Amino acid sequence: MLALKEKINQEGCYLGRGILKVDSFINHQVDPTLMEECGKEFARIFADVKASRVLTAEISGIAPALMAAYHLHVPVVYARKTKPVTMPDTVYLTVAPSHTKGVMTDLIVSPEFLPRGERVLIIDDFLASGNTIQGLVRLAQAAGAEVVGIGALIEKSFEGGREALAYLKVPIHSLVRIDRMDDTGIHFGD
Amino acid sequence: MLALKEKINQEGCYLGRGILKVDSFINHQVDPTLMEECGKEFARIFADVKASRVLTAEISGIAPALMAAYHLHVPVVYARKTKPVTMPDTVYLTVAPSHTKGVMTDLIVSPEFLPRGERVLIIDDFLASGNTIQGLVRLAQAAGAEVVGIGALIEKSFEGGREALAYLKVPIHSLVRIDRMDDTGIHFGD
Repeated sequence: MLALKEKINQEGCYLGRGILKVDSFINHQVDPTLMEECGKEFARIFADVKASRVLTAEISGIAPALMAAYHLHVPVVYARKTKPVTMPDTVYLTVAPSHTKGVMTDLIVSPEFLPRGERVLIIDDFLASGNTIQGLVRLAQAAGAEVVGIGALIEKSFEGGREALAYLKVPIHSLVRIDRMDDTGIHFGD
Repeated sequence: MLALKEKINQEGCYLGRGILKVDSFINHQVDPTLMEECGKEFARIFADVKASRVLTAEISGIAPALMAAYHLHVPVVYARKTKPVTMPDTVYLTVAPSHTKGVMTDLIVSPEFLPRGERVLIIDDFLASGNTIQGLVRLAQAAGAEVVGIGALIEKSFEGGREALAYLKVPIHSLVRIDRMDDTGIHFGD
């Protein structure tokens, strides 16, 4: 997606160790117009998978997932990292390693909002190692829901997430693919 | 706002101790169409304050703040609860007590995205005691930015947040006001 690629070129910053800083439009400050365009593009790409809801992980997945769900006219559920007092006693919980934080993170979804038989489209900001998305897949599977597609704003193709998720045999789409980052800059794939 | 009030009547659940569960459309599952309508309403209400950015707190503030920012055509910044590796070493940090969690929470904003002189509209899901919003006000003030308005989806008027924020002398608007919750139900104000 050209608009997102241009924004990364203008404002993205490679910090080393595979970390891309996009805090000015995705991860801390958010560009709502760009996010709306990305959501619309996800809705176009995944129109045929007939998703009945979008699933994401707090925190940075919320903006793109909300905009995708808005254009798909379905609810969005974000997995929580801590269990709030409003959640029932029994929940779906899995753990996933956080690449940028170096710790294990809980991902928690209430059974109230992930009923059996749902057709789940997973949307997140990054597809890197795929660890967070695999956690969301496990939550969907535990609930008896079917994952019908996976979308990410930015794919770091060199971290192997796409290959790790291939066994699901569902469409995987990223709006921008980065094949390499080094001192010479951010190198995009096709 | 009628659509939000109706949704609270249909799906909101009073859990006791002043806690309103709205997990089916705001706090865990999100209704994107309703959030878009709320964002549009915030943009209408605050059209005259000439905000240059929207400020909120992760996590539940993100959806309404993003939609408000979308309709106001300005960026949105969400204060983080933990400092990610992508943030600079020196940040604005304040602590605010969390009503529903019973702990102190950090609110962190990078100076990169809260420049001096900005006109800041604060948007959050709830206006209750006002503690989180007061934390966001302190962050804006530390940055030399001006708070020009405060908006919340749901106000619990019996917790005194509006009175605690009155000293700011800025417009404070909630889309729905709840004056009382008890065994007989959720009682709305005007």
